[in-house]
Amino acid sequence: MTPASTGDLGWPLRRAARHHRERLAVADGELTLTYGELAARVAALGGGLERLGAAPGARVGFLGANSLAHLECVLGVAAHGRVLTDLNFRLAPAELAFMVEDAGVEVLVVDRANLEVARGLRTAAEALRTLVLVGHSGESDCVPYEDLVRGGLAITPVSPCSTDLAAISYTGGTTGRPKGVMLSHGNLLANATHNLLATGHTAEDVILHTPPMFHAAGVANVFAATWVGATQVIVPRFDPAAVATAIERRRVTLAILVPTMLERLLEHLAESPCDLSSLRNLQYAASPISPGLQRRAAAELPGELAQFYGMTEAAPTVSHLSPEVHERGLAGEEPYRSRLASAGIPVPGVEVELRDDDGLPVPAGDVGELWVRGPNVMLGYWNRPEETAAALVGGWYRSGDLACADQDGYIFVVDRRKDMIISGGENVYSVEVERVLIEHPAVAQAAVFGIPDERWGEAVHAAVVLEPGSEETELEATLVAHCRERIAGFKVPRSFDLREDPLPQSGAGKVLKAPLRKPFWSVTGREIG
Amino acid sequence: MTPASTGDLGWPLRRAARHHRERLAVADGELTLTYGELAARVAALGGGLERLGAAPGARVGFLGANSLAHLECVLGVAAHGRVLTDLNFRLAPAELAFMVEDAGVEVLVVDRANLEVARGLRTAAEALRTLVLVGHSGESDCVPYEDLVRGGLAITPVSPCSTDLAAISYTGGTTGRPKGVMLSHGNLLANATHNLLATGHTAEDVILHTPPMFHAAGVANVFAATWVGATQVIVPRFDPAAVATAIERRRVTLAILVPTMLERLLEHLAESPCDLSSLRNLQYAASPISPGLQRRAAAELPGELAQFYGMTEAAPTVSHLSPEVHERGLAGEEPYRSRLASAGIPVPGVEVELRDDDGLPVPAGDVGELWVRGPNVMLGYWNRPEETAAALVGGWYRSGDLACADQDGYIFVVDRRKDMIISGGENVYSVEVERVLIEHPAVAQAAVFGIPDERWGEAVHAAVVLEPGSEETELEATLVAHCRERIAGFKVPRSFDLREDPLPQSGAGKVLKAPLRKPFWSVTGREIG
Repeated sequence: MTPASTGDLGWPLRRAARHHRERLAVADGELTLTYGELAARVAALGGGLERLGAAPGARVGFLGANSLAHLECVLGVAAHGRVLTDLNFRLAPAELAFMVEDAGVEVLVVDRANLEVARGLRTAAEALRTLVLVGHSGESDCVPYEDLVRGGLAITPVSPCSTDLAAISYTGGTTGRPKGVMLSHGNLLANATHNLLATGHTAEDVILHTPPMFHAAGVANVFAATWVGATQVIVPRFDPAAVATAIERRRVTLAILVPTMLERLLEHLAESPCDLSSLRNLQYAASPISPGLQRRAAAELPGELAQFYGMTEAAPTVSHLSPEVHERGLAGEEPYRSRLASAGIPVPGVEVELRDDDGLPVPAGDVGELWVRGPNVMLGYWNRPEETAAALVGGWYRSGDLACADQDGYIFVVDRRKDMIISGGENVYSVEVERVLIEHPAVAQAAVFGIPDERWGEAVHAAVVLEPGSEETELEATLVAHCRERIAGFKVPRSFDLREDPLPQSGAGKVLKAPLRKPFWSVTGREIG
Repeated sequence: MTPASTGDLGWPLRRAARHHRERLAVADGELTLTYGELAARVAALGGGLERLGAAPGARVGFLGANSLAHLECVLGVAAHGRVLTDLNFRLAPAELAFMVEDAGVEVLVVDRANLEVARGLRTAAEALRTLVLVGHSGESDCVPYEDLVRGGLAITPVSPCSTDLAAISYTGGTTGRPKGVMLSHGNLLANATHNLLATGHTAEDVILHTPPMFHAAGVANVFAATWVGATQVIVPRFDPAAVATAIERRRVTLAILVPTMLERLLEHLAESPCDLSSLRNLQYAASPISPGLQRRAAAELPGELAQFYGMTEAAPTVSHLSPEVHERGLAGEEPYRSRLASAGIPVPGVEVELRDDDGLPVPAGDVGELWVRGPNVMLGYWNRPEETAAALVGGWYRSGDLACADQDGYIFVVDRRKDMIISGGENVYSVEVERVLIEHPAVAQAAVFGIPDERWGEAVHAAVVLEPGSEETELEATLVAHCRERIAGFKVPRSFDLREDPLPQSGAGKVLKAPLRKPFWSVTGREIG
């Protein structure tokens, strides 16, 4: 009596190729492919990886923007029993080197824009033997990507099971050292299911991939869209004009945007109107949204609005704020209106509990740590048994986010225990920025946190206590330059509070950020509880 | 690194009670309950069962029509770690006695209409100690059902995991002896997910439960509807007037009917029009449908039409014929028109392959046995290791149905290897009826098969070779009476072909039903391949 497998990541594309063979699968600029054509290329990818010596279980990296090749690697690397390590190309080379080394990436697929960085990584990381270059040939130290997907060489069959490792997705850590989130085949399929349940994609949908595919959110949408045989439209990076054009031209029905992108799209449309009438569902995710932006999006764009909330460790979807709440809330009806500031309720298949430090449920209305359970919850952190043991407790994942819930369990995230800032959809871990700031000789103490920002949702702000006698002239510019050398641009503070008096501290000597944050956030009227 | 649980059957109601507490959960005649109220009753049921001495793992039976109590047992018995054995009250007492004995049912919940049969079962089956009577008190040998759901007695906590046995659902067998299909928590949750994916239920839906809840299809709809917090409308049994009234009064948006019910509903509406404008989705399932009925349903009823195909061993959904195919097919557009006779394509999460007797895939277009794989596939047959080993092969379930597929993998079921007739949504195993017929002294040989029937989809037909010298006067009536004593009324042949010449046989002496069936089926124009 063996439990049936919940499937492997080859299922969605196998289904689409079998039942939607002639349907348009991908539109990437002028390039279009049916599901039959896409499946043939992805099938060849397995043989290609094998030919490069990447054995089953080997980590295969991707470093680049959204593209057909990126989509194919998402669909094909794990389906062929290898482990995808999809990297954020906006990170600094030193950060990427750490990840490539930590995961033991053997083969790295890279696009032209990131080739020089990739060459540096190959030099730095011992395991990394092979670079595969997307869309170009003639670089003698790289394998052309097209060779991999046109080979047709038969692969030794691999049949991953649902508990097998499929992807390692790096996320910042409270210690400042990135951690590789291990997601299984079953985790990613469960999440694709959860997204489908929330959104109701069908084969008739046309989905625009704007979130980067190196994020769990981008990956989730690839599997969800493929599973039902929907058409997937790719834009290499977010550009409001390109996005508006793609929606109009491809009759996109479903788009996923972070609030920052939504803001920029609305700005663009105000000046250059486009026919976006095909949109039936607009999802936003990944960072706090202002009530003004919610109102404008509902007023100025067609289709329904919905929100997703999640985290990489949950592959990523945890909860969903439905179109119904948006519609009735924006019409001023309670309790919907208040719930516009919430992250919604858990999707079917995911359970959430708010617990105190002892792991006991908090009384109704109180703030607690958000614990998550479901078939989407990660296997653990790669090579981090202690951090895994701390994060996975009795089948639950302790997210570190602090939240309260209203009487119907709508989740209001009030703080992130992990002290993370979400700026333009990117996660910035305060501790990592603080660690870099403190390395500068003029800095005695630093507290980094997010402050509200119309464009970025949150902007990175640093309160910095100077060493006595420090030269303050141009110090801001100096600190920015100091950070830029060491961490990704989106992590560098956008504003500073340079001061001489010490930061507020708890009795135990821990810096208290709440009083520092308060003046910035209390004016927005979005505080809960 | 433990794989995360895919959940237990308590999840759907926990979610609904947490997030849709005030929403209308159930309307059963005049009785209505919110999800908060329903959850409180179901929570008490655990304590009630414990008080009756049903330990975790004990089999708890249900014998009766659809009702609030039935819904509560579906939601509560497995969620509290007991195993639900839901029985078809249309079966003959001897059949039920076999099942109660085979499963070792200890507690049987029964409604008034089936009380006398239940008392007989208690006498016949050793393990069955306790009868719980729904909706009535004053029977000294029964526990009133309301005592169980009003107790509030705390239960010793049980936390079923997704691979635990949740239900035993009896199905006829090719040997004529019913087999208990073991479905796990994960199987039933997976199937609820598959149904939600196909239908797109939301909390705003109002779902009419017409399929009996003792069928896997009825159970599936309970969990799917509960999970999203939809309203569930109960009618005790199919009656076209009651169904039409319930749809109108409760503004039902989603109804599931077997073709026979659909036919009778249309007949009723032709004479007594009703406002059914709330319907957005009408699902039919469980037996072949005639093209005429498809057309009439689409023309005369509002909302989309869709079809489900499955079997108890798959918990039950395997495939789905979408509204798009119905709409475009009924408009005469190919290939959709031809696909109206198909069972659609597998739902996301379920895989199907057509294989030959050696387990190898058949060439495209050929007929093969339909194999099914997915997290919905049963654990096996209760206490039948040999039949389990024959049915579950390498993670796949061999359904016994024979099918071919068109170029896009639309499944056309052409025959059932198990020689099963589906009449009015009920499964009738030919071999079981043949075994009963052959017991009669006048019968030398019998071949039972389904013939097309406008009302029942298929009707049970028997070709009977008489013993030489048998008295033919009133023999049909005699055989009907003979069957009625031994098997359920719906299994009794509705027509006979009494003959003296032998039945056609293969070289190996096996009766060939194909030439017997052919004259009945070839006129319908529904033959495939």
